[in-house]
Amino acid sequence: MKILKVNELISIKRSVEAGTSEQQTAVKAIIAEVRQRGDEAVRELTEKFDQVRLSSFSATEQEIEEAYGQVTEEFVAIVREAAANIRSFHEKQLRPSWMTTEENGTILGQKIIPLDSVGVYVPGGTAAYPSSVLMNVVPAKVAGVKRIVMVSPPDRQGSLPAAVLVAAKEAGVEEIYKVGGAQAIAALAYGTESIASVDKITGPGNIFVALAKREVYGDVDIDMIAGPSEIAILADDTARPDEVAADLLSQAEHDPRACSVLVTPSMALAEAVGAEVEKQLAVLPRREIASRSIADYGAIYVTADLDEAVEVVNQLAPEHLEVITADAMELLGKIRHAGAIFIGRYSSEPVGDYFAGPNHVLPTNGTARFSSPLNVDDFQKKSSVIVYSKNAFMENAGKIAAFARMEGLEAHARAVEARLKND
Amino acid sequence: MKILKVNELISIKRSVEAGTSEQQTAVKAIIAEVRQRGDEAVRELTEKFDQVRLSSFSATEQEIEEAYGQVTEEFVAIVREAAANIRSFHEKQLRPSWMTTEENGTILGQKIIPLDSVGVYVPGGTAAYPSSVLMNVVPAKVAGVKRIVMVSPPDRQGSLPAAVLVAAKEAGVEEIYKVGGAQAIAALAYGTESIASVDKITGPGNIFVALAKREVYGDVDIDMIAGPSEIAILADDTARPDEVAADLLSQAEHDPRACSVLVTPSMALAEAVGAEVEKQLAVLPRREIASRSIADYGAIYVTADLDEAVEVVNQLAPEHLEVITADAMELLGKIRHAGAIFIGRYSSEPVGDYFAGPNHVLPTNGTARFSSPLNVDDFQKKSSVIVYSKNAFMENAGKIAAFARMEGLEAHARAVEARLKND
Repeated sequence: MKILKVNELISIKRSVEAGTSEQQTAVKAIIAEVRQRGDEAVRELTEKFDQVRLSSFSATEQEIEEAYGQVTEEFVAIVREAAANIRSFHEKQLRPSWMTTEENGTILGQKIIPLDSVGVYVPGGTAAYPSSVLMNVVPAKVAGVKRIVMVSPPDRQGSLPAAVLVAAKEAGVEEIYKVGGAQAIAALAYGTESIASVDKITGPGNIFVALAKREVYGDVDIDMIAGPSEIAILADDTARPDEVAADLLSQAEHDPRACSVLVTPSMALAEAVGAEVEKQLAVLPRREIASRSIADYGAIYVTADLDEAVEVVNQLAPEHLEVITADAMELLGKIRHAGAIFIGRYSSEPVGDYFAGPNHVLPTNGTARFSSPLNVDDFQKKSSVIVYSKNAFMENAGKIAAFARMEGLEAHARAVEARLKND
Repeated sequence: MKILKVNELISIKRSVEAGTSEQQTAVKAIIAEVRQRGDEAVRELTEKFDQVRLSSFSATEQEIEEAYGQVTEEFVAIVREAAANIRSFHEKQLRPSWMTTEENGTILGQKIIPLDSVGVYVPGGTAAYPSSVLMNVVPAKVAGVKRIVMVSPPDRQGSLPAAVLVAAKEAGVEEIYKVGGAQAIAALAYGTESIASVDKITGPGNIFVALAKREVYGDVDIDMIAGPSEIAILADDTARPDEVAADLLSQAEHDPRACSVLVTPSMALAEAVGAEVEKQLAVLPRREIASRSIADYGAIYVTADLDEAVEVVNQLAPEHLEVITADAMELLGKIRHAGAIFIGRYSSEPVGDYFAGPNHVLPTNGTARFSSPLNVDDFQKKSSVIVYSKNAFMENAGKIAAFARMEGLEAHARAVEARLKND
């Protein structure tokens, strides 16, 4: 791994895949098809891309029951405990609607309520990601969203992975469609005969899914177009090199464009971690992916002291940040930009990926400067409430009309004055 | 105004201006120029578009002092009171960081902190909109954003409107640049020698500003690309036709594409409001704009009863909703989708535009189904905090590793197990 000085700081911003113009054209055509011909278009596109013709897109109760037969009891128990942890953490984020009252009769407030409906995309392909089902569905459920729809591409037998079905059931999804790709996003955004439209679409997907989400954004809400993942580890010489290296590699194995960075004032640690990364890489099943990631986007920054190390971390604004130093908790107040902050050597990043409760859907690509982990707010919305009494109105009508006239909006002033005239 | 049956419900969705391909190309070129050549490019573009060559972009303390001399004391007092109301309403939205502790040593929480820096765009042109300055700046200030930058295009004398400068000063802006258009957005997003970059850009603007915001989105955050404005009024026959008509017109005067809708179970009210709109339109200064808006996007829906009227409103999801019925407050619980809800005849929409305290930056175009008024959350962000103790880790390490292996992510499992090996 490259050991670098801080003045060579490399931005962790990598371009988010924009897709080729062919891909963009294909996605637009798919969306137009689904809007025009509904289910029939979805059926044809599923046959074309997933090599299976489905008479019904719904995953049935029976399929879900069978899925429970295909996973271990241990797996179900772990999913259940993880879901409970995620539920508990997200429940603490719930906020009530509120109001404030004044003596003159004014009532002002925010009505905070869940979205009506949400669609969660779950990617298909070779691996199944039940953790992604939990992380997207549970917050929506906690927020109070009544209708949560899951979509995921079927395999050639027209099935979904058992682990995904089990996670969906445990998270509380009641509507599952075996549809994937841009056609799934189009169906969620605009509805078909058998799939009613939703208000927001969340969840990761391949480039076609990402392009489709971008395309429907505005007609429905979306979560984000996630870039490749990253981790920064802020450590001093109390950290164990093998643990630090293992955590860097746990990020690197995701994607050749994942980014793993160690920031430390200790040259000894820097060198030891560098050596450990090589050693562990050699025996990693996904070493091809991880070694490309480490070569292209891995770096070890050696800083003058811990304060400078914190500043480097704030400049990177990493998705995941581990702090493994003698007084890790004391540094928390200095950290301004990171999606999730893991404190101490036992808070290894996978703890948060699967189990602890906070969301693993996090701002990537330096966007932790202004974005947040997926949370309950993402599934609720606010309406302002304004109740002006006659008293409150009479006290202020003149000022309001004057302000409106100052901006050249006469009809605004007259709307106010219509009340004065009538009273 | 058209009186329609509910089965003819017209969507209030109007396309958000996408700009011509010439405009898009021009905006991309401007952004590239500013990124490459910084201040010099901004200076040239300002000369080209605003017909003034500026040696410095900053509005000076002296200019601000002079602005106070150009407005009335009454105006300053109204701005001050409005700002105080907006401040008070937004302060109630502040949330603390929080944590939860468990007996096994686990600490989980959310660290909620302000963005470092925000840029507020204030449109130029013939009218000055100090209310827009207050509505964008005050929430950022309340959120705790340290650096708030305002940009606005200068007139040919290189000045900004006095009302805008006064509003900026009252709201607490300390950095003002006389730069507008796409070049201002580029400078805020990427920085120049004299304008440091920000993390988020808010505020309305013309098509070039909107296109530029779309272009820089991702590198910085933006608020939204607002569509044309709309109002729905839900009223029964206790409402006064002249007041309802005046409120409809206060929306219509904004923009030929603004949308004003009355929803009522009372045919008598429908007819009376229709007649009043014609009467008031005839003597309105901005009647050209308002009459086009009413003709193209105005409608009166007559419903079977109040419940159906509420359902129509929820389907429209209007930016502004007035409820003027005998028991208006009782309907609040049934309203699911509206940006701001004004209850009772004294809560005329301009009350919220200028003065009451809730934000006038609201979701348009039906997006109130999933979006919220501009609020303090928009200027803060969250980081998850995860502290696992040795105990917590030992209890759960096996489950976490098993979950990771189930998803095929071996390095994740090994990161966990590295700790077990060392202990």
